Amino acid sequence: MASPGAETKKPGNHNDFVQLCNPHVAAMKEDVLYHFSLSTSTHDFPTMFGDVKFVCVGGSPSRMKTFIKYMAEELGLDHPGAEYPDICEGTDRYAMFKVGPVLSVSHGMGIPSIAIMLHELIKLLYHARCSGVTVIRIGTSGGIGVEPGSVVITRQAVDGCFKQEFEQIVLGKRVVRNTHLDDWLVQELVRCSADLGEFPTVVGNTMCTLDFYEGQGRLDGALCSYAEKDKQEYLRAAYEAGIRNIEMESSVFAAMCNACGLRAAVVCVTLLNRLEGDQISSPHEVLVEYQKRPQRLVGHFIKKCLAAA
Amino acid sequence: MASPGAETKKPGNHNDFVQLCNPHVAAMKEDVLYHFSLSTSTHDFPTMFGDVKFVCVGGSPSRMKTFIKYMAEELGLDHPGAEYPDICEGTDRYAMFKVGPVLSVSHGMGIPSIAIMLHELIKLLYHARCSGVTVIRIGTSGGIGVEPGSVVITRQAVDGCFKQEFEQIVLGKRVVRNTHLDDWLVQELVRCSADLGEFPTVVGNTMCTLDFYEGQGRLDGALCSYAEKDKQEYLRAAYEAGIRNIEMESSVFAAMCNACGLRAAVVCVTLLNRLEGDQISSPHEVLVEYQKRPQRLVGHFIKKCLAAA
Repeated sequence: MASPGAETKKPGNHNDFVQLCNPHVAAMKEDVLYHFSLSTSTHDFPTMFGDVKFVCVGGSPSRMKTFIKYMAEELGLDHPGAEYPDICEGTDRYAMFKVGPVLSVSHGMGIPSIAIMLHELIKLLYHARCSGVTVIRIGTSGGIGVEPGSVVITRQAVDGCFKQEFEQIVLGKRVVRNTHLDDWLVQELVRCSADLGEFPTVVGNTMCTLDFYEGQGRLDGALCSYAEKDKQEYLRAAYEAGIRNIEMESSVFAAMCNACGLRAAVVCVTLLNRLEGDQISSPHEVLVEYQKRPQRLVGHFIKKCLAAA
Repeated sequence: MASPGAETKKPGNHNDFVQLCNPHVAAMKEDVLYHFSLSTSTHDFPTMFGDVKFVCVGGSPSRMKTFIKYMAEELGLDHPGAEYPDICEGTDRYAMFKVGPVLSVSHGMGIPSIAIMLHELIKLLYHARCSGVTVIRIGTSGGIGVEPGSVVITRQAVDGCFKQEFEQIVLGKRVVRNTHLDDWLVQELVRCSADLGEFPTVVGNTMCTLDFYEGQGRLDGALCSYAEKDKQEYLRAAYEAGIRNIEMESSVFAAMCNACGLRAAVVCVTLLNRLEGDQISSPHEVLVEYQKRPQRLVGHFIKKCLAAA
């Protein structure tokens, strides 16, 4: 079933078990994944999640539910009356859905929110003894110099100063991590977009910020102490640095997947062109259609991988 | 109805209209509050929100819904069959509820998530021409050297290096803001806790971090490169610096409310004592009861203010 011109090989060295970068967890009798409302003492992780090969994550719980239903249909696993219950029903912090080898998890907005989710997700995959797992963020973003509705596949995640690194404070000290993403996966997703031929897709750098308003040079927040001219200068410099979109999760996503040896990609649709404005004022139906594009692209990729396996 | 020994005066200079720190917004024809799914062109903000005097914010949507029902009961505004619809029903990014002068809004987890909400909340209050507004975060946290279930009223919000400031990147440059909170409000909340006499309450500094695991010195994340000894050293130094709890929103909350002249407080219950462990493993019922404590304290404060008005 592989599409013409497609070179789908890997995702899945099945000896490639998910590893933690933390020697303490193996010694714990019980591990409570508090923000998922799951625990190793009350849930059988290998049975529940052992077959997971693809994890797709995105901000909104309802979008991630839509995605799992879409994947069920695409993989021929949907049937009349099928329901996709929230595996994290004991909490409203995150929502999680599963069909076949695909897990779909919401992460809220911003670096801290996705980081909590990723810590607990990676531990879940480890406790479940998963192997050969690919993790893809499917999200929304602001574009820079690209047509609204374009899908950006991230080459490098960079910070608000255009540096390709993720900085955090650990025990009061600055720690800097690499935000490299998987090159093979980028190229394979580009091929999938060409297979589909449904929407413009570009590969570019993605700027990841801690704020949506001032942090992304918007003029329409509750606080703003600069002018249109300053904003344009900043966004044009970002474009010159190869940045094609701005969002709020990619850097820590890349850093954590990287540190734990997970193959990872970031695929975001752009809802507007920031060189032309700040407000997201397209009609609801247009935005809904845009938001389906990363889902269609990644759905196609997963189908191709499974067909080639 | 003011309780004995209580000195409730202000909240509410009614000439004290909510102001923005942004000259651009006044010139906008329409303002789309995208993450609330509200817009000045489709919603009548002064009619919907003009009477708001107290805004309570917390991470979880369901907790903020519980809170508005509780406030309705406390203020005698509840009635059989009363419903409290989500004002932001067009989105699942945030949830918002209102009863009388009280607005209850969820903010998700972490600085970026609460910052997006606060930008849009402060613009909402401005467009609605609200005056004399008090904003209180009612949340959960990890305690340091205090009994689980204690409520901490924040004196100062500090960062992971114990500095009383909030740093962000604006147009690629470092901007540092003051995280001062309202002293009168702290003292008044202490009096309210004494009125109630139901749970231990302390005033202390609150450390606000960008990560829940490594960023708070936990040993149980997917990544950890330090030992129990290093963690204890860090947490004990935090205690010495007057820090009594750790959470993930207070610094930007204080900075933004401060910059826009809003009277603000942070009231968080501690779910565990971090000197004794990392995992939140208390029974569900115990955690649910703990989470009600900030709601009870702030509910009592609001009733007192309204009785004294």
